[in-house]
Amino acid sequence: MVVDDNFYMSLAISEAWKYQLLTYPNPAVGAVVLKNDELLSIQAHKCAGEAHAEVLALKEAYLKKYPNDLLSKIVDVFEIHDYLEFNTKDFFEDCTIYVSLEPCNHLGKTPSCAKLLEKLKIKRLVISCKDDNKKASGGSKILKDKGIEVKYSCMEKEGKSLLYPFLQWSKKSFVFFKMAQTLNGAINGGKISGKQTLKYIHSLRNKIDLLCIGGNTVRQDKPVLDTRYIKDGINPDILIYSKQKSFDKSIALFNVLNRNVYINDNLDKLDNSNFVMIEGGYNLLEVLKNKIDYVILLITPEMKYGLNYISKMKLNFEIIYEHYIEDDKIVYLKIIK
Amino acid sequence: MVVDDNFYMSLAISEAWKYQLLTYPNPAVGAVVLKNDELLSIQAHKCAGEAHAEVLALKEAYLKKYPNDLLSKIVDVFEIHDYLEFNTKDFFEDCTIYVSLEPCNHLGKTPSCAKLLEKLKIKRLVISCKDDNKKASGGSKILKDKGIEVKYSCMEKEGKSLLYPFLQWSKKSFVFFKMAQTLNGAINGGKISGKQTLKYIHSLRNKIDLLCIGGNTVRQDKPVLDTRYIKDGINPDILIYSKQKSFDKSIALFNVLNRNVYINDNLDKLDNSNFVMIEGGYNLLEVLKNKIDYVILLITPEMKYGLNYISKMKLNFEIIYEHYIEDDKIVYLKIIK
Repeated sequence: MVVDDNFYMSLAISEAWKYQLLTYPNPAVGAVVLKNDELLSIQAHKCAGEAHAEVLALKEAYLKKYPNDLLSKIVDVFEIHDYLEFNTKDFFEDCTIYVSLEPCNHLGKTPSCAKLLEKLKIKRLVISCKDDNKKASGGSKILKDKGIEVKYSCMEKEGKSLLYPFLQWSKKSFVFFKMAQTLNGAINGGKISGKQTLKYIHSLRNKIDLLCIGGNTVRQDKPVLDTRYIKDGINPDILIYSKQKSFDKSIALFNVLNRNVYINDNLDKLDNSNFVMIEGGYNLLEVLKNKIDYVILLITPEMKYGLNYISKMKLNFEIIYEHYIEDDKIVYLKIIK
Repeated sequence: MVVDDNFYMSLAISEAWKYQLLTYPNPAVGAVVLKNDELLSIQAHKCAGEAHAEVLALKEAYLKKYPNDLLSKIVDVFEIHDYLEFNTKDFFEDCTIYVSLEPCNHLGKTPSCAKLLEKLKIKRLVISCKDDNKKASGGSKILKDKGIEVKYSCMEKEGKSLLYPFLQWSKKSFVFFKMAQTLNGAINGGKISGKQTLKYIHSLRNKIDLLCIGGNTVRQDKPVLDTRYIKDGINPDILIYSKQKSFDKSIALFNVLNRNVYINDNLDKLDNSNFVMIEGGYNLLEVLKNKIDYVILLITPEMKYGLNYISKMKLNFEIIYEHYIEDDKIVYLKIIK
């Protein structure tokens, strides 16, 4: 394997995928810091309102060399920016920063990353995707104008894949279909996923604007669809997609506080929400396939007889990314239309 | 993500997995070279008789700094050893070498790697697994005796997973079950895998001592089971596991040159072969599950209706490793018994 810019950018992109969707409404972004040729840090943006990927990577890089520095105690993002700017002397002047997305150029919930990199006089910036967002773009130009070397389009295909959900929800809406299955595609038989995977699902529910589910599943499984496995989670509004509008209102999902439940025989609500999760099985997947940006498959490593895909129509996918949560796999798929 | 010894060892181990089984009868081994703190190379042993992982990593590391050096032209493994020993001066004296398996201490098809590292006076050696093979072990002791820092057991669990097939075939036999399926577990419907995946399967067939297949599959699919997708491949001997011993001898597999075909209602032949591949579907998998070290699942990213697992018995797996071949996934599984 060749150790080059692509290699380091792919480390940044892989790290960012761990927090994909969880950064909503921000993009998932990863960053790497190299001092001369020494790899110092690999970081990712984790949650909107918290520090951006490049800032976390700068912080970790500095602490790798000075583990007992006061910086280790600082968590407030404005304070981290300030500390890096005024207390790290010329530490970053021989550093290359890899970022999957062009550093932001505006003061939002956090200060501008481009301005920080400019002040730190970094040696070189490598970017996968340019930021086309009007508010935040132009970050790399500031650095170029200051004579800092900037390389664009490094691992751009992979960088764009990482950015895709953000581009969708910024434009209109991002809709993903979540399904849990065994290795051989069986989707029934109670809880399929492990505890950490359930936590992950609840973390996603905490972020989305709307959770869509089929009427039959509601009647059969009587789900709660809340966020009880995480702390202080917000329970999402529910759209039950169903022709028959009468439901037993003692079903748990109707009795969750601070939640709206809509029962509709159309999907207009999907278009009016920025970030939508659909939970269902193969039938709903086939019905809604043209509405879906991603399928997120949670796969448990077992084989068993059970409910499986029975449509005569083949569905083709591109595997966008995958990783693990404990023993379960999580696979991000795009339907090839 | 923390950049430490574990991180670099995991790069070495990941690289080695790309050649898992293809190094037979040698172990799959990966290596990384760090000069001071600069990552220079990530390499793996690729084929028995060719250079070992650490030697390829040393070569690539040197060429990273001196790309036009004469070394780039040298492919013979004895010549690489000699060249590294006599022409690289003190280049490696500030280097840390990560190897997933203790460097070998004997002259086999290639010279001793431990002796080479000793002569290069490397700064530090990090090993995942010690080599318990009587012939080759003791490599790290030579280096320690020379005052070189040696660290053991780095990512040992992952290193042992990588080494497992080698340990099995060295002791007695390593048996893996290969199955191709869609994302939802359908295994029928002609060629499931892509072209590169088929090449990979043929590369495995080229290495194994015996290919085992069920009698029904032979009758229904009339397979060739040869190695036509690769150059100069050896066509493996075949064991047809079948109660009924009569077969239509015009079926292609019987007419491949330089091949023995055995038809047995027992599996004794598996125990007498070091490296065995079983090709089959869910039925054979369940029948032979206690004979199998690994299941190798080749997964094509589509969903379709088709033959699936129908036993009432659940099979539980540990996912050992997985990677991609073009658009297909390859997953190494161990049955949890």
